[in-house]
Amino acid sequence: MGNIQAPRGTYDVLPDQSAKWQEVERKIKELCNLYQYKEIRTPVFESTELFQRGVGDTTDIVQKEMYTFQDRGDRSLTLRPEGTASVVRSYVEHKLFGQPDQPVKLYYTGPMFRYERPQAGRMRQFVQFGVEAIGSKDPAIDAEVIALAMDVYKACGLKSLRLVINSLGDTESRLAHKQALIEHFAPSIGEFCSDCQTRLEKNPLRILDCKVDREHPLMATAPSMTDYLNEESSAYFEQVKGYLDELDISYVVDPNLVRGLDYYNHTAFEIMSDAQGFGAITTLAGGGRYNGLVEDLGGPESPGIGFAMSIERLLLALEMEKVEIGTGQTLDVYVIAMDAQSKKKAVATVRDLRASGISADMDFSDRKMKAQMKSADRKQASFVIVIGETELESGKAAVKEMATREQQQVPFEQLADTIQKSKSMEE
Amino acid sequence: MGNIQAPRGTYDVLPDQSAKWQEVERKIKELCNLYQYKEIRTPVFESTELFQRGVGDTTDIVQKEMYTFQDRGDRSLTLRPEGTASVVRSYVEHKLFGQPDQPVKLYYTGPMFRYERPQAGRMRQFVQFGVEAIGSKDPAIDAEVIALAMDVYKACGLKSLRLVINSLGDTESRLAHKQALIEHFAPSIGEFCSDCQTRLEKNPLRILDCKVDREHPLMATAPSMTDYLNEESSAYFEQVKGYLDELDISYVVDPNLVRGLDYYNHTAFEIMSDAQGFGAITTLAGGGRYNGLVEDLGGPESPGIGFAMSIERLLLALEMEKVEIGTGQTLDVYVIAMDAQSKKKAVATVRDLRASGISADMDFSDRKMKAQMKSADRKQASFVIVIGETELESGKAAVKEMATREQQQVPFEQLADTIQKSKSMEE
Repeated sequence: MGNIQAPRGTYDVLPDQSAKWQEVERKIKELCNLYQYKEIRTPVFESTELFQRGVGDTTDIVQKEMYTFQDRGDRSLTLRPEGTASVVRSYVEHKLFGQPDQPVKLYYTGPMFRYERPQAGRMRQFVQFGVEAIGSKDPAIDAEVIALAMDVYKACGLKSLRLVINSLGDTESRLAHKQALIEHFAPSIGEFCSDCQTRLEKNPLRILDCKVDREHPLMATAPSMTDYLNEESSAYFEQVKGYLDELDISYVVDPNLVRGLDYYNHTAFEIMSDAQGFGAITTLAGGGRYNGLVEDLGGPESPGIGFAMSIERLLLALEMEKVEIGTGQTLDVYVIAMDAQSKKKAVATVRDLRASGISADMDFSDRKMKAQMKSADRKQASFVIVIGETELESGKAAVKEMATREQQQVPFEQLADTIQKSKSMEE
Repeated sequence: MGNIQAPRGTYDVLPDQSAKWQEVERKIKELCNLYQYKEIRTPVFESTELFQRGVGDTTDIVQKEMYTFQDRGDRSLTLRPEGTASVVRSYVEHKLFGQPDQPVKLYYTGPMFRYERPQAGRMRQFVQFGVEAIGSKDPAIDAEVIALAMDVYKACGLKSLRLVINSLGDTESRLAHKQALIEHFAPSIGEFCSDCQTRLEKNPLRILDCKVDREHPLMATAPSMTDYLNEESSAYFEQVKGYLDELDISYVVDPNLVRGLDYYNHTAFEIMSDAQGFGAITTLAGGGRYNGLVEDLGGPESPGIGFAMSIERLLLALEMEKVEIGTGQTLDVYVIAMDAQSKKKAVATVRDLRASGISADMDFSDRKMKAQMKSADRKQASFVIVIGETELESGKAAVKEMATREQQQVPFEQLADTIQKSKSMEE
């Protein structure tokens, strides 16, 4: 029997990498608290219908990429391919629209699942951090959501960032644009791929997003959304840009920015990495406004906006920009027992140190002192405590500070205090 | 169309609950650092074969409770029902057995999935924290693993805890006991449920765990594992108990403790809540030694021990013991804009406060000042800053400390400093 591996498109985060993840998540938690977004946790799977209704039947995600299965009670379930539909489902189910303070500002981090061809920055299970502000159509909240995304990257140390924004307009504007797109593409639609032919009537906007037909000459000359924004939509977009200016956030307007999900309107944005060597997929985060989605899922009118960012791509960008993160994890004390007799004392000593907030470890393989000392070195212990026959008799352990190589004899009951004092002097 | 709900047996953690989860996870992270267990993250789904081989074909989990499905590439995948098999798979796949420092001490937290009848403390998606120490058969590591589990509960504030331990012995002891069990049950096996009849030859130990036949008289008189432990197994168990004594951890030995997974041997343990009103399911955590599992999954001899605890049940126990946790989340400043003109200044002020590490929020619904003030009260803001025409003209904002009701005028550029000073005086 061959050995079993992690399924294709998935991966393990091993201990030498997990400190990075923890540090990114710590910064996210801290910023969300400063911005007053509260955590929400939804299940890993949902009714398949949720994503059909909430993400959109014409999207690649729903058509080609979902992990859908029947459970033992014959329900059709799907591993969530993104977070917004679930958060909005929860907002409706738990009637969060009834809370006096709107918008409700939420964030989540967790695994998402899409069956795609795996490549760097695109895995079948990937982790997204996202926020949703539901219950306000204030352009200032659009700017806040964008600012939070930018702040996460900046807090992690990224510098080569580009924010691209666009307005997809309101329903009226979108319909006018849709009509123009149909008229533009219809006469030559036979020259396009079969997906685009299906998209023409259902959702011609998504033709602009097609990877197959991107070089077709009609793409470059397609009518731009910007020209079809009605007065209200234009004014809204101007206000969003005004608040971004107020926040000193620079951006590029790209009238061709179309997000891959059906539910967006008004503000749409992406944050890209301009770091050298980042590869083909440069989008770190994407988001936008989704007025109407709460109603589609059975709630009252509650305009919303949010974004999602890939943690994998954030870590990739950090690597490209050579930013080190989460490298501060160290071991305070390694306790060495010289013989079987001393081992019980070592176990109790390790226990006492930990109880005083000092990280401590010891040998669990009955190795000789020299091998234990090598472990202490590899683990970069700040102190080594040695316990043997002499120490048991004298009631004092040998404490060695590894940086200075200084050694002293310390009564067992004063070990934690002594180490703690030395630690605080270092800081 | 009816509204879509979270799938049966799953639930949302809403913002009013998520602070508790975060606080429990913070304590777990802190203790794992003190104990030097490092985080590992494995995928949510694995090859179905992993759990068949790694959890055991005769277990209820594998036979009845797994979420198994085919992906679009026709692989049989299963949502992980527990964490140990995945961690061991990863240990083998990434050759962690080759690292110089054994045991490799790992921890994980994450969602697990079992298709069971939902009840309090038993959901279809639930969250486990678990640790695995792989690569040592030192009885001191068994004691350490148990100590870490107990410490997590104590750090969270639980008091009514009971630790139950047992030894399942080594292979020789287990075979002798198995033979005795078969001889004990075989003559009357017709009186037992069909599951038990299947178990008789395959894994008679699991008959003792049967919920259907628990009252059958042969259950009480069944041969006890303790009587079949060979010398080595007995000595090992004595050493584990000796280290627990050294660590001042009290325990009860229960010769009938049988864990629901096939892979355990030697040390097995459970931690129960004795809190009043806890309900039928009182097991908070369970674990044990699994020498041989790494070999079963294709690695070299690497004895292991670990445990898993349910975070849902930990939170339930905290509730039963009336321990409050994670209630410290507050808002530092709520910024009120009196009119459209002041709003841009409010947006910039909120941005400046956050950039100084002060949590800040404002209105995004164009409400009147009185409604905004109510929001500030509900959000328990420590300070309220008011910006209107007068403040814009004078260049000074009105700052009100909510606890003292004291008010002062502060130049905009000194707002962050002023709040930070007041905050640090409170602490």
